[in-house]
Amino acid sequence: MAGDAYVLIMAGGGGTRLWPASRKRRPKQFLPILPGGKTLLGATVERVLGVAPAERILVVTAADQVSEVQRTAPSVPTRNIVIEPQARNTAACIGLGAVEVLRRDPEGLLAVIPSDQYVSKPAPYAQALARALEVAARGLVVTVGIQPTAPETGFGYVEMGEALAGGAFVVQRFVEKPDRATAEGYLASKKYLWNSGMFFFKASRILEAIRAHLPALGEILDQIHARPAETAALYPKAPSTSIDYGVMEKLKAGEVAVVPGDFGWSDVGSWSALGTLGPAGADGNFTLGESVTHDAHGNILYAEPGRLVAAVGVSNLVIVATAEAVLVLPKDRAQEVKEIVRALESSKRDAYL
Amino acid sequence: MAGDAYVLIMAGGGGTRLWPASRKRRPKQFLPILPGGKTLLGATVERVLGVAPAERILVVTAADQVSEVQRTAPSVPTRNIVIEPQARNTAACIGLGAVEVLRRDPEGLLAVIPSDQYVSKPAPYAQALARALEVAARGLVVTVGIQPTAPETGFGYVEMGEALAGGAFVVQRFVEKPDRATAEGYLASKKYLWNSGMFFFKASRILEAIRAHLPALGEILDQIHARPAETAALYPKAPSTSIDYGVMEKLKAGEVAVVPGDFGWSDVGSWSALGTLGPAGADGNFTLGESVTHDAHGNILYAEPGRLVAAVGVSNLVIVATAEAVLVLPKDRAQEVKEIVRALESSKRDAYL
Repeated sequence: MAGDAYVLIMAGGGGTRLWPASRKRRPKQFLPILPGGKTLLGATVERVLGVAPAERILVVTAADQVSEVQRTAPSVPTRNIVIEPQARNTAACIGLGAVEVLRRDPEGLLAVIPSDQYVSKPAPYAQALARALEVAARGLVVTVGIQPTAPETGFGYVEMGEALAGGAFVVQRFVEKPDRATAEGYLASKKYLWNSGMFFFKASRILEAIRAHLPALGEILDQIHARPAETAALYPKAPSTSIDYGVMEKLKAGEVAVVPGDFGWSDVGSWSALGTLGPAGADGNFTLGESVTHDAHGNILYAEPGRLVAAVGVSNLVIVATAEAVLVLPKDRAQEVKEIVRALESSKRDAYL
Repeated sequence: MAGDAYVLIMAGGGGTRLWPASRKRRPKQFLPILPGGKTLLGATVERVLGVAPAERILVVTAADQVSEVQRTAPSVPTRNIVIEPQARNTAACIGLGAVEVLRRDPEGLLAVIPSDQYVSKPAPYAQALARALEVAARGLVVTVGIQPTAPETGFGYVEMGEALAGGAFVVQRFVEKPDRATAEGYLASKKYLWNSGMFFFKASRILEAIRAHLPALGEILDQIHARPAETAALYPKAPSTSIDYGVMEKLKAGEVAVVPGDFGWSDVGSWSALGTLGPAGADGNFTLGESVTHDAHGNILYAEPGRLVAAVGVSNLVIVATAEAVLVLPKDRAQEVKEIVRALESSKRDAYL
């Protein structure tokens, strides 16, 4: 039997794929980039309130981002904000959350949800999560896999095996980001799902798996469980490994299940992805913030509050205006923002990072 | 006989052709848009120091721009900053300057120079101005006309008549901005010069011409001459007319002369014009301020101090980043910034104007 379901929202970490709006100290989950000025974290909390009550929603984040979490997700009680003393990747972060849940309920179930994803259809989303928790209550490690709509090379994939009870499937294997030809094969086979980064398990079960496959981390987590006051000293010693590489890929096929989901999911991994999250306005321009256009078509225009973007005679561009920096690039080259970030890093212009 | 030569730099007025860098309260002559961060006003003062000493350089400007003038042109003595109580166009502005010169020297000569033009060859510029002043000393109204290099439809033209002594020509007529076919005819004829907006005359001579052709303005200027303490009350009653339309076009051919000039002149009338004022950098990008580019070619990139423009995969664009607003448009459509200004005006978003 299993206890209550907790949701662990991972809101630490940075990311520069939405630079210059997202910055090292202002990751994308805190930005008002959704229509209506909502943040991805705020929308995530709203969605998971359909899965667990606020008192069982935990948010893991860095110490210097606690106030951002409080501002962006006011319904999460302050005692549910779990501070990650240092960024140590997802295996350690999830382990820390599992210890916290175990402390509150030794039989507790855990849904691990990234804070920076977008979902357009909340009802099938809640359904998929409820289903995944049911399967996890049976002692399995569970993930939700996204029905692919394109041969994406930017995601990991999950290969489905035989069907299980409750709408789940055995996970045959996890695979890392494929090349284009492989991704096309995956799409055609209908046997592969995108790895969403959402995971479901009993807290005790994932800690057991960590002990088995990442024993150094397991030991640190057991120490943290025994002596919570020493978390700040113990946690930074944890190995920095992803849960996918460190645990998921090492589990046997019978231990992991996947629940397929189709709920308008996006990882908002680029400015062009952002432009698909809401309806475009006049002339096909997708605007967040204030803009004026003249004979400009199909652009993504982003202006921070108090700023204005004006565009004349340009098409299919991304134009981003923040207090410190402006970015202009074609929508179909949105991934190349990394070239700018790299150039800023190598020239040590940290003020813009 | 004539007295000393004074230079009157006209630095009032706004202009939005370099929006959003130039704004209603921050006209382009005060912007650090020249290579090395110089302003057009600062460069103009430096240039005319070859024509008259600082104590005979006057700057006419609005009361709320006096501190900008002092900051940008520190070599101009404060007592030489003439305040225009209200913008009343060039005829009144030049008349006000002429009264000021007349007060200092009843025989004084006057060179009227816009503050927002660029000159790449200061030596032939100084030569042309000296020549124009010599002709003006003989009692003529003189202008310097620019040898056209293209069939520009954005400038007025001056038709040259017979040659006069001292390298000048009779002005046959002033013509307003022509259409394209007419401009091509002017260019081919070699008889037309661009109207530079620079004028030279004895202060007493231009006041006489104003009395003859703009009697209402003449009367106000005579009152200002008699009662300088009442300038602030009298000046706003002046008719708002340009010196070209109100006086120059009305003078007889024998009264006006033109000195041709060829000194790398630009009125910096658009962002694309600005991009021709200095050498382009890597990949043909012309940059003012801080920028990072990747596979971007032939762009004009402008960032206010403390801001960064980043461009990937775009060509021949103008990208302007200021604190409040960002503008993106193709170089060859730079004139269409007026569409944005118009839209902002009609939607009453004055904060951006």
